[in-house]
Amino acid sequence: MQSFIKYAESSDFSIYNIPFGVAVFGQEYIACATRIGDMVIDLATLYDFGYFNDIEGLTDNIFEAYTLNEFIELGKPVTSAVRLRLQELLLEGSALSADTKSIEECFYALDHVKMMMPVHVPNYTDFYSSIEHATNVGKMFRDPANALLPNWKHLPVGYHGRASSIVVSGTDIIRPKGQMKPADADMPVFGPCKQLDFELEMAFIVNKNTEMGESITTAQAEDAIFGMVIFNDWSARDIQSWEYVPLGPFLGKNFGSSVSPWVVTLEALNRFRTASPVQEPEVLDYLKFDGDKNYDINLEVYLQPENGTETLISQSNYKYMYWNMAQQLAHHTVNGCNVEVGDMYASGTISGENPRSFGSMLELTWRGQNPLELENSEERKFIQDNDTVIMRGYAEKDGVRVGFGEVAGKILPAV
Amino acid sequence: MQSFIKYAESSDFSIYNIPFGVAVFGQEYIACATRIGDMVIDLATLYDFGYFNDIEGLTDNIFEAYTLNEFIELGKPVTSAVRLRLQELLLEGSALSADTKSIEECFYALDHVKMMMPVHVPNYTDFYSSIEHATNVGKMFRDPANALLPNWKHLPVGYHGRASSIVVSGTDIIRPKGQMKPADADMPVFGPCKQLDFELEMAFIVNKNTEMGESITTAQAEDAIFGMVIFNDWSARDIQSWEYVPLGPFLGKNFGSSVSPWVVTLEALNRFRTASPVQEPEVLDYLKFDGDKNYDINLEVYLQPENGTETLISQSNYKYMYWNMAQQLAHHTVNGCNVEVGDMYASGTISGENPRSFGSMLELTWRGQNPLELENSEERKFIQDNDTVIMRGYAEKDGVRVGFGEVAGKILPAV
Repeated sequence: MQSFIKYAESSDFSIYNIPFGVAVFGQEYIACATRIGDMVIDLATLYDFGYFNDIEGLTDNIFEAYTLNEFIELGKPVTSAVRLRLQELLLEGSALSADTKSIEECFYALDHVKMMMPVHVPNYTDFYSSIEHATNVGKMFRDPANALLPNWKHLPVGYHGRASSIVVSGTDIIRPKGQMKPADADMPVFGPCKQLDFELEMAFIVNKNTEMGESITTAQAEDAIFGMVIFNDWSARDIQSWEYVPLGPFLGKNFGSSVSPWVVTLEALNRFRTASPVQEPEVLDYLKFDGDKNYDINLEVYLQPENGTETLISQSNYKYMYWNMAQQLAHHTVNGCNVEVGDMYASGTISGENPRSFGSMLELTWRGQNPLELENSEERKFIQDNDTVIMRGYAEKDGVRVGFGEVAGKILPAV
Repeated sequence: MQSFIKYAESSDFSIYNIPFGVAVFGQEYIACATRIGDMVIDLATLYDFGYFNDIEGLTDNIFEAYTLNEFIELGKPVTSAVRLRLQELLLEGSALSADTKSIEECFYALDHVKMMMPVHVPNYTDFYSSIEHATNVGKMFRDPANALLPNWKHLPVGYHGRASSIVVSGTDIIRPKGQMKPADADMPVFGPCKQLDFELEMAFIVNKNTEMGESITTAQAEDAIFGMVIFNDWSARDIQSWEYVPLGPFLGKNFGSSVSPWVVTLEALNRFRTASPVQEPEVLDYLKFDGDKNYDINLEVYLQPENGTETLISQSNYKYMYWNMAQQLAHHTVNGCNVEVGDMYASGTISGENPRSFGSMLELTWRGQNPLELENSEERKFIQDNDTVIMRGYAEKDGVRVGFGEVAGKILPAV
């Protein structure tokens, strides 16, 4: 497929992608958007030009909105049809390609656009579904010989996180203060976190509301998932390690999480499906699934100090996930817990076997024992003030590339 | 103070209370409401009659709403003024008392009204702030000699819960299914929860949005708290005990929580202030506070089997709380975590020293070892299908009673 919008071969936003987001166009105007190459398209105005007129189920201009929630609540039949329509419209020789008025009014160069949070997030859950990450953490903090806890291979362990502090890429994050207990101290102390970390994750977004008591099976799960973003689950390790027993992470996490602005649909990711790691022991029936439910998505983390260049510090892949999205959603709802449109379900840190594929500073530096060397020869055990962490992700196969762009966040000093 | 609306001396909804809720009046009409005795008052229509005209900051009829969020976001100066105005209007001899047209249109007998969730809850946090409860759980599941974990007396331990499944009193709760690992089994099993429990809690509701990076001090906290409800944190003990390490409770809790429909303001509770238990060791500076920050609120739990009468199974009191609301909110935000209007912050199970004051079946029966005997001579280790759990709460002092009414929920069989 060739688009009349030209873009680099290395662009994440090829004609095969067609992601969705929410953009501020110019100074003030906000609407739902898609992107191809470095061009961002105002879907609300495109709707007004009649390009979606015959799409069944799309009867209002729900692109005139500050979030994608209304759009994605329409469900797969509509959101897939809109994506396919956009793909057609962006092809060489399409009706739109000759409609200079619509192009002039709907198409914006990337640098005239600012991205917002793509969805309102009613509920946020964080899983813990990478076996390599769970094993690394278990080795460091518990028993190296029995790193995985007994439940880990039987269910996708997860916990509820803080929805209010999920922000879009580009939002600065203030270093949290809190209570910590240094290993050599008798009493806890208060101050700025000294072990600030990122966690390389991906998150999926749900497109429906369910009733309490209703479950979503592994077979139904993909119909309930609109798409995915890259997710940085910022973590204050020293706050977390003191607070987290027995009820889990709290202030060590809830000061902020960052997401990439473009939601890549499951349809766009379909060609990058791959098998999951073998699950042994066999899982209970409600966690069984058919077909390839994992995705081969390359993930990279870069650290950029103030006034410095980026250093690639991790290369991981979503395909390492032990538990897949269908299992996560089936598990989350098997007890009747209701889900809501826009809910975000994050994977947990995505680490591979290779130490260069670990998805957090905690693992990359092994609790600070092996500092990372940056391009400018500085060392990092954890993240310092004014460092920017950038995560990028893309899938590539047979010359087709579909990517997420990036999620970037800069750490400001504690206030 | 005497109201022109007559009510029993034992009513929770005296002229000193004036709580806020959201009611369905008749078949369909929904509006914000208050209650005195057994009379529920439609505030939206009362607003239209001009009774709030001169209240500064109240410029729209925000009582025409499905939640209290817009009202409580106006902040204490407005919400307190509205409450005081209502108190005046309900006194004998008031202008309203002679306004038969307004009374006819705004006042509904209780049995013509159905209560809804009082607020939309953007975020829900559950604390663990009763020392007796934490000690009981620690004795049962960890080490009787070191029941409290090392962090417990240094910070109000808490975790994020599920906002989507908080429902109003009267909503049936379906017994959750899930994964459990019986003590004598090698592998986990799947099925309906066998150890269904309640947790007697109270929750406070926040009236403001803060920015990320902003903190609320213990001195500022009460201005940010609109009021309180009784909160039943339903818990599936067998699901919880298998899943909860290392990231905390998840499916054992998120299938449902129930709240009482009337939000009692901190102003109404003011006369029931009392000192907290002494905190030793001394807490860090950001957790210190001045004055009496606890409240003397009697709490009761009743269990009613299908076609049976209620049995009083627990009598506790909110004043047992080791950590108070001001400390909880200061802790929650000391790292810059932002709060949102309508957020619910629950206390954790409220147990006293006396075994009859324990706030859960887990503690009352000591993990099922000492079953409770009901009025109809049945026994209960945990909650059975078609049992209804009813929690009631009220404060009483010098002849003044201010109460919460009740939160009731019936357990339906697993589906």
